[in-house]
Amino acid sequence: MTRILLLGAGRSASSLLHYLLRHAPSEGWQLIVADMQPAHLVPVLAAHAAYAQAVPFDLQDETGLEGLVQGADIVISMLPAMLHGPVARACVRYARHLVTASYVSEEIRGLDEEARAAGITILMECGLDPGLDHMSAMRLLTDIRSRGGQVTSFKSYCGGLLAPEAEGSNPWKYKFTWNPRNVVLAGQSTAKYLENGRLRFIPYQQLFARTEKLRVPGVGELEGYANRDSLSYREPYGLHQVPTMLRGTLRRPEYCAAWHALVRLGLTDDAVHLGNPADLTWAELVEAYLPAGMEALSLPERVAAYLGLEVSGPEMQRLEWLELFSERPVGRPDATPAQLLERLLTEKWALQPSDHDMIVMQHQIGFTLNGQPHLATSSLVVLGDDITQTAMAKTVGLPVAMAVRQLARGTFGQRGVVIPTLPELYEPILEELEQDYGIRFVEEELVAHVPAGAL
Amino acid sequence: MTRILLLGAGRSASSLLHYLLRHAPSEGWQLIVADMQPAHLVPVLAAHAAYAQAVPFDLQDETGLEGLVQGADIVISMLPAMLHGPVARACVRYARHLVTASYVSEEIRGLDEEARAAGITILMECGLDPGLDHMSAMRLLTDIRSRGGQVTSFKSYCGGLLAPEAEGSNPWKYKFTWNPRNVVLAGQSTAKYLENGRLRFIPYQQLFARTEKLRVPGVGELEGYANRDSLSYREPYGLHQVPTMLRGTLRRPEYCAAWHALVRLGLTDDAVHLGNPADLTWAELVEAYLPAGMEALSLPERVAAYLGLEVSGPEMQRLEWLELFSERPVGRPDATPAQLLERLLTEKWALQPSDHDMIVMQHQIGFTLNGQPHLATSSLVVLGDDITQTAMAKTVGLPVAMAVRQLARGTFGQRGVVIPTLPELYEPILEELEQDYGIRFVEEELVAHVPAGAL
Repeated sequence: MTRILLLGAGRSASSLLHYLLRHAPSEGWQLIVADMQPAHLVPVLAAHAAYAQAVPFDLQDETGLEGLVQGADIVISMLPAMLHGPVARACVRYARHLVTASYVSEEIRGLDEEARAAGITILMECGLDPGLDHMSAMRLLTDIRSRGGQVTSFKSYCGGLLAPEAEGSNPWKYKFTWNPRNVVLAGQSTAKYLENGRLRFIPYQQLFARTEKLRVPGVGELEGYANRDSLSYREPYGLHQVPTMLRGTLRRPEYCAAWHALVRLGLTDDAVHLGNPADLTWAELVEAYLPAGMEALSLPERVAAYLGLEVSGPEMQRLEWLELFSERPVGRPDATPAQLLERLLTEKWALQPSDHDMIVMQHQIGFTLNGQPHLATSSLVVLGDDITQTAMAKTVGLPVAMAVRQLARGTFGQRGVVIPTLPELYEPILEELEQDYGIRFVEEELVAHVPAGAL
Repeated sequence: MTRILLLGAGRSASSLLHYLLRHAPSEGWQLIVADMQPAHLVPVLAAHAAYAQAVPFDLQDETGLEGLVQGADIVISMLPAMLHGPVARACVRYARHLVTASYVSEEIRGLDEEARAAGITILMECGLDPGLDHMSAMRLLTDIRSRGGQVTSFKSYCGGLLAPEAEGSNPWKYKFTWNPRNVVLAGQSTAKYLENGRLRFIPYQQLFARTEKLRVPGVGELEGYANRDSLSYREPYGLHQVPTMLRGTLRRPEYCAAWHALVRLGLTDDAVHLGNPADLTWAELVEAYLPAGMEALSLPERVAAYLGLEVSGPEMQRLEWLELFSERPVGRPDATPAQLLERLLTEKWALQPSDHDMIVMQHQIGFTLNGQPHLATSSLVVLGDDITQTAMAKTVGLPVAMAVRQLARGTFGQRGVVIPTLPELYEPILEELEQDYGIRFVEEELVAHVPAGAL
């Protein structure tokens, strides 16, 4: 019997929990599902009482956490990333494996030696992005290298989007399928990447204006904006000398240009509390960002003039659709602009019960083989089943769950702090995702036949 | 005998220390000057051994701090603002007065009741800005109100600049006379002010493009950019209903436009570590911020095209003068852009031994009196004596020192956490500054004689 503890069973853990319940009887697992509000789990676990129980969990109660960890063999944490420290330390203390879908923090990295000494695996970055991106990129890179290819360019994009029919009349063609706050604050630093051997930096105020277009089979045209740090992936991917290295986030065309307008207005700032009343209207708020003058024009006309946009152009259409020029109250006193924008978008971009989300990922790897430049692409498109088994929940949760199965079976033996860049871990996961869930990367390759000597 | 403890006796405390030493014998003061590096104080205090001594002071040593505070009657803290918490708490514990030139933090504000109970004064914001600005503004406002005037507009500007002859060939006409880091990071939030009854917000990326021009007698033309929060001054100044309220920072013309170019390039960002080598050149760094393309043009030509500037215009001249397009190494590995810029500017904008600095402050108060709109201005220009008794050191340190004298003499009796908005405190200080130091606000008033009924 293997005792598995799941910490945090919110909406994003639905597919993960589903997998664990499905396999628990045959794999001999006992599941403890610990959540702040365990009541919602009672109906979910009702048919599985023989091998699954819900328990309350209080983030403040460190003794309770220790007890839970001690009573498990493998711990899964779906808690917010900043809460992983105490969990990981408890796992080291009681020599329990830990799996999460979050980035390796400095704090977690510092536990590597202790984890090895305790004989445990702390497997991080095992969800979608980070997670499936590592797995599929490493599989493709390993294949290219095994054929003798020399990688010259690595670009990788991922986005949590809407299935085309769910886009409806929403001109942004976007709704929240993940943490709204992260979407509103996305990119608030300088993005770093490499292009043809040159370092490239994009400051926040230019980020959404400097996008790249790409096409994904079956999805159509998308835009990518650069992620915060593309350079840090050189080391885990073994791409120390690659001249081009870029990771980006996908949106539908025109989203970024309209978001850039919000950034330029100042509405994504999270550093200042405005001292506003809750009944300040959106029109008044937007007005406050404009310089004085041009009072004869309407508010949208002045915003368009200020930003240098067409008043009936695609960016202004999207701002109008958000009711930014309306008498709608901002609804929260003394907030940051980002908090007010998040509040508005949480309503405007709410996923409806009938909506299906869509995950899109694409790697573009340029390489030279036999003197010829090649371009390999690997694309993933996953649609959500419904509002619970979303594409996001599936692609984040299933890799975590499948890694847990490997740890439970003892088929993955790497100890210490690891991420899923090892074939013995990712090969069976990619295989299982494809066979059992139809989550499949489509790989294509183009060869440019150039005359000898022209390169 | 009054025992006065001065915590922190760096360059900015030179005029303060000078004042304390000058008045100690006649006022019966015993001075303890506590500094991290007290060695530099030995020659300064040599002729004053009967009533002044230097002692070492370690920020980490809380017991030492307690002992120092306990042994004094009045404490002056010229330490960095974030270190005032423990000092203020010790002052409350041992019932010692405290005077600083720093803003009232939430932490300090929270000590008000305890300070009253202990019968002590915690006098904050008693330097230049904040400090002299409060005093001179309150004097002018009190005068206007006593005449029955109704204030309709309050604008106030302050800047630490260079005496005109020290500007030399430096096209920025600016050097560091205060903390360089604060200058590089200035305005990195949304500025808030009021204009004709409307809230106005300026996001950072527009701040240096939305400046106001003003003229100060004897100084000529200046530009002001809005400070972070002008609204918080309504309450202490009793201007709850004023329709226009703006505080700003002064620079010479064209400074702000050129700084705006640095902001737009991304060189003032302090959030990202670039992972750069120390021998990266400034040309390479600037290059990294440009989009690909236009390789046939020179670097300054591409920067100008990217920013929409004339290649030989005033902004680009200033960037060239900083050697931003040169082979000069940035000199520090894995730094933030702001750190690299600060490093460069600390050299380029270093005050030379023969330089004189200049403080300029101007209040512009619009008010209605007898149905006529009036505009009162109050302007201050202070020149530094030399590189030690700078205008900055005088205007920051002397108000602090004069307030200490009032506390020592018992002529200021307000207890609790206070700022210098009370006439019994500021009147004698403004008087003494004028009589003994020639630090004098020049007040002017304009009346617009408009036909009755036209308002």
